Amino acid sequence: MPSLADGPDDTGADLHRWATDLFPIGRSLTGDGVRATLAYLADLLPGLTTHEVPTGTPAFDWSVPDEWNVRSAYLADADGTRIADYAVNNLHLVSYSEPVDATLTRAELEPHLHSIPELPDAIPYVTSYYRRTWGFCLTQRQRDALGDGPFRIVIDTDLGPGRLTYADLVIPGDSDDEVLLSTYVCHPSMANNELSGPVVAAALGRWLQALPSRRYTYRLVFLPETIGSLVYLSRHLDHLRAHVRAGWVLTCIGDERTYSYVPSRYGLTLADRVSLQAIDELGLACDRYTFLDRGSDERQYCSPGVDLPVASLMRSKYGCYAEYHTSLDDLTFVTPTGLQGGLDLMAHAIRLVESNRTWQAVQPGEPQLGRRGLYPTTSTRSSGGQSSVRNMMNVLAYADGTNDAIDIARIVGQPVPQVAATATLLEQAGVVREIPAPLPPPR
Amino acid sequence: MPSLADGPDDTGADLHRWATDLFPIGRSLTGDGVRATLAYLADLLPGLTTHEVPTGTPAFDWSVPDEWNVRSAYLADADGTRIADYAVNNLHLVSYSEPVDATLTRAELEPHLHSIPELPDAIPYVTSYYRRTWGFCLTQRQRDALGDGPFRIVIDTDLGPGRLTYADLVIPGDSDDEVLLSTYVCHPSMANNELSGPVVAAALGRWLQALPSRRYTYRLVFLPETIGSLVYLSRHLDHLRAHVRAGWVLTCIGDERTYSYVPSRYGLTLADRVSLQAIDELGLACDRYTFLDRGSDERQYCSPGVDLPVASLMRSKYGCYAEYHTSLDDLTFVTPTGLQGGLDLMAHAIRLVESNRTWQAVQPGEPQLGRRGLYPTTSTRSSGGQSSVRNMMNVLAYADGTNDAIDIARIVGQPVPQVAATATLLEQAGVVREIPAPLPPPR
Amino acid sequence: MPSLADGPDDTGADLHRWATDLFPIGRSLTGDGVRATLAYLADLLPGLTTHEVPTGTPAFDWSVPDEWNVRSAYLADADGTRIADYAVNNLHLVSYSEPVDATLTRAELEPHLHSIPELPDAIPYVTSYYRRTWGFCLTQRQRDALGDGPFRIVIDTDLGPGRLTYADLVIPGDSDDEVLLSTYVCHPSMANNELSGPVVAAALGRWLQALPSRRYTYRLVFLPETIGSLVYLSRHLDHLRAHVRAGWVLTCIGDERTYSYVPSRYGLTLADRVSLQAIDELGLACDRYTFLDRGSDERQYCSPGVDLPVASLMRSKYGCYAEYHTSLDDLTFVTPTGLQGGLDLMAHAIRLVESNRTWQAVQPGEPQLGRRGLYPTTSTRSSGGQSSVRNMMNVLAYADGTNDAIDIARIVGQPVPQVAATATLLEQAGVVREIPAPLPPPR
Repeated sequence: MPSLADGPDDTGADLHRWATDLFPIGRSLTGDGVRATLAYLADLLPGLTTHEVPTGTPAFDWSVPDEWNVRSAYLADADGTRIADYAVNNLHLVSYSEPVDATLTRAELEPHLHSIPELPDAIPYVTSYYRRTWGFCLTQRQRDALGDGPFRIVIDTDLGPGRLTYADLVIPGDSDDEVLLSTYVCHPSMANNELSGPVVAAALGRWLQALPSRRYTYRLVFLPETIGSLVYLSRHLDHLRAHVRAGWVLTCIGDERTYSYVPSRYGLTLADRVSLQAIDELGLACDRYTFLDRGSDERQYCSPGVDLPVASLMRSKYGCYAEYHTSLDDLTFVTPTGLQGGLDLMAHAIRLVESNRTWQAVQPGEPQLGRRGLYPTTSTRSSGGQSSVRNMMNVLAYADGTNDAIDIARIVGQPVPQVAATATLLEQAGVVREIPAPLPPPR
Repeated sequence: MPSLADGPDDTGADLHRWATDLFPIGRSLTGDGVRATLAYLADLLPGLTTHEVPTGTPAFDWSVPDEWNVRSAYLADADGTRIADYAVNNLHLVSYSEPVDATLTRAELEPHLHSIPELPDAIPYVTSYYRRTWGFCLTQRQRDALGDGPFRIVIDTDLGPGRLTYADLVIPGDSDDEVLLSTYVCHPSMANNELSGPVVAAALGRWLQALPSRRYTYRLVFLPETIGSLVYLSRHLDHLRAHVRAGWVLTCIGDERTYSYVPSRYGLTLADRVSLQAIDELGLACDRYTFLDRGSDERQYCSPGVDLPVASLMRSKYGCYAEYHTSLDDLTFVTPTGLQGGLDLMAHAIRLVESNRTWQAVQPGEPQLGRRGLYPTTSTRSSGGQSSVRNMMNVLAYADGTNDAIDIARIVGQPVPQVAATATLLEQAGVVREIPAPLPPPR
Repeated sequence: MPSLADGPDDTGADLHRWATDLFPIGRSLTGDGVRATLAYLADLLPGLTTHEVPTGTPAFDWSVPDEWNVRSAYLADADGTRIADYAVNNLHLVSYSEPVDATLTRAELEPHLHSIPELPDAIPYVTSYYRRTWGFCLTQRQRDALGDGPFRIVIDTDLGPGRLTYADLVIPGDSDDEVLLSTYVCHPSMANNELSGPVVAAALGRWLQALPSRRYTYRLVFLPETIGSLVYLSRHLDHLRAHVRAGWVLTCIGDERTYSYVPSRYGLTLADRVSLQAIDELGLACDRYTFLDRGSDERQYCSPGVDLPVASLMRSKYGCYAEYHTSLDDLTFVTPTGLQGGLDLMAHAIRLVESNRTWQAVQPGEPQLGRRGLYPTTSTRSSGGQSSVRNMMNVLAYADGTNDAIDIARIVGQPVPQVAATATLLEQAGVVREIPAPLPPPR
């Protein structure tokens, strides 16, 4: 049976295979690519439920935009050769491009082209969700090789009232306190940002579903970035503020470079404490960013008035790797090994959340552990110094109802799972009992 | 029209001219020199009001001393040559010297002489306010050249019941919260300690009066040191404790050496936060002292039971420069450039106080800045990283009602005026609103 | 007359003599050795009262064990030569050995022998209070020289229902707030751990009794380690929690090596602040341990639910010196000089507790010290800088009712007794008054 200690059954290789299946789907903020992606994920995650929200539905300061779908789109030169074709790589088309059927000169075309001079082989990822326009993205080499035209532009898209699509899954636990795992499904063919997020989320969800029980209720959400989280928050704000105890945005978690951590707005939540403890216990090299470096849905989850305890654990952080938002962010950059590392880190974070209980001594004074077989009965010069005994006595000393397991772990210098195992032993021996967690600091 | 951003119209040269006019006046704790000084300042500062307090009036543990006025005073040698003459330099006479008309031997005179062996060309500044005596101050060279006498001593002074004189000016603002600017007018001919204080205070007052509006009410006080602030506090304590949000003692603020900062008793008040931020934003080298180094009216303003939020921003701190309390503290030591620097620092401190508002988001989630023209509508690899956009988003993230502009400036690494300008733009866009400042920490 | 400033009359030589008298007594957790020890201490400390607690009496999670007394015990070889004899050194017998009269082979004997290979001339100290067994401790050289036997084992002990014995003494003070001094009397012939503790406690008690008055009430307790403090706490918990403001466990305080400090559970109590200040003021080199390094009755005093403010000031800490819990911890390791140092440190700690008052200014503003002869009446360049005057003004500035004398000492950089002397002068001058101590921080 799957266990908290053993971690997910799915491996980095499984996750890479799922990402490979999802890679070619033409995702955007809305549309059938999102639906196809969610359908694939629902096969992995039974119970994942898709929701559709009509264009124009308000979400705080925002409203749901028009839906966008692409039948075909290409840029061809004078002799009909297709230079940039959505069917070849969906990054070639600026997301939310309006329909066009025209023949243009090079000069007329130029303002609609996007490329990256310093990355001559990369197709950039460009969107224009909230201003009607159109455009093509191509490599700098392609652009340099363009003749004078005329060029044939065909963009066969639908852009109009429709629906925004997202999915969620609530995996119930012993408590109605919740852990939020949020990831996004609005980027076309890129692997670290974004497919690593949904596949790690799916693997975590499959593991959590398979566990015999969970202390926390887990809420997994798969949505388009920004507008999706705003819509989700606007529908569930009171519930989320009342129940979410920790949360993570899952993104950029599949390459093999260093790990990254972005804190919540003040960096003091349970999600922050768990993130740092997980990195520490696994001995990972990690770049610690500040909330000023945020860039994904934590912008919404941690905004004033929302104030959810949400952090991010990543590998190469968005905006901080050369391949970011280009066609170079592909399935060679994201690897089975890289995905396994990201999954292991998040699984350990969940392990720490689940282990993070609070205990209090049952009566004053140290309990007599010797008569319970937990303390050596012959006292010699070194018996009090045995590390297992000292570890137990140290956990006992700080199991005073003001510390949770992470606090105790920091004080006594032991990993959280060891602290929890010791405290469980002491609980079974009847010398400590679990109590509700102490209140977090006011900010 | 004068503005908060532009700073005072008066220049260091103006201030130096005022100080030159005030320099020869024979000031002391009380008397006509104080009155003449306040009359000059009232010409600069319309509305400045003089108050007279009778000898014997109680002020907490103290009472107003006798008034002292000097008609003439000199020390002459056997042939009638005047060696030290109050008319030549009013530092020659110990302040509060009682009347004397006598002829003395060198031995009899000696206990009444003051000089500084290590500064042979300096006349020291000596007072004896609370013990009746008399004395002359002269340079060490003069003292070394004295013969055996006899010496003629003429001190034609009045020392008896009269009045203590001080002045104040309240410049009203939108709020009845106050900023206190306090300086003293009891030192004879010395330039840094003290004339730099009154002239910088006058220039700040003229600027504040000329501004179209002020958020804070400004209270300027010109008084004799120690007994003056005690009298002022004893008359206004409840009002000042209820209304003063920040204050500064203005002294030693006109030379060209390094800047100095003396904190309030615990260094945690708005005046302290503003002082440190102003020094930082102007990029000034500054010696940071502790409250143990205090030495002027902050001794009273920050005493237990008074507890006003008062700090000091200076150039060369009293007691920490060789010229201190001697005739070398003159108008070559204090310069137009030095005064301009001191004025600029205090003007920036006031700018920060005025800018230091607190804002809160109007609704949860990030506002949609794009439709207000405040966010790029085409998203490319670098658009989220534009520093102007990031700065705005960062101000938004921390405009949560728990931070004032100084807090936000420290968190996001921008100057306070830039934070305030951004927040004002966001306020005009309707996405944040101003709220009352959060309560300061308990101490 | 003895005074707080002068310190105890008894010297390190006196204490060493007492320890020499007590050294041969066969102490254990219970029994006549404890009674003989307490009787000797009662001669030094009039009023010390002995209490007897029957076997089986509950003490939180524990109960009082059987009483143990030894008539004689030896291990002899085949020819009757006594190899290990309780009468020669009471460390030879494992504490709480059950009665035995047997002849054994070497192989049968071996599991009952204890020695230390790396300290071949040391007899180890071994106990087995809570599991019935027997054993002999001998040097490694003795053990290596043992033949094949047979060996004669005679352990003539009583082990059965009886009493646990401890003693206490309450020396009343002006307040019913208490200082707890706790030491233990359950170790056989060892000098640092433990006789240094009881003799330093006795000297402190004699000093405190001789003082003309005390601000605090002092509670001295002499008890068997662990079970003794548990019994004591179970009988007095409510009283101790309500009254004890600071306490120390006295142990390992008589050798000449470095000083040691073990904090209370969170290191924030008055006992911790006093300990660190005392070490600092005496300029002692001191190893600062954490509560994870605890090992004596502070385990009980600082346990959750007891939470007394108890720290430890030692010389070589238990477990951290080679001689620990062996016959090498003798009266050459503990010296008159070493005991004097420990006594001086604890006496200074008590001096700081007694001096640690809280004052508040009588009225706002600085008082006029000049008219009280406490401030120079002629002001020259340097008069404000006189250190005695500045020290007095600094004490005044922070005597605001939120700081006790230790806080003020830390802020102004003066020793606590100097702060207290200055504040007493100011109190006599009527400018400050004593108020109750501010509440300690919540943890």
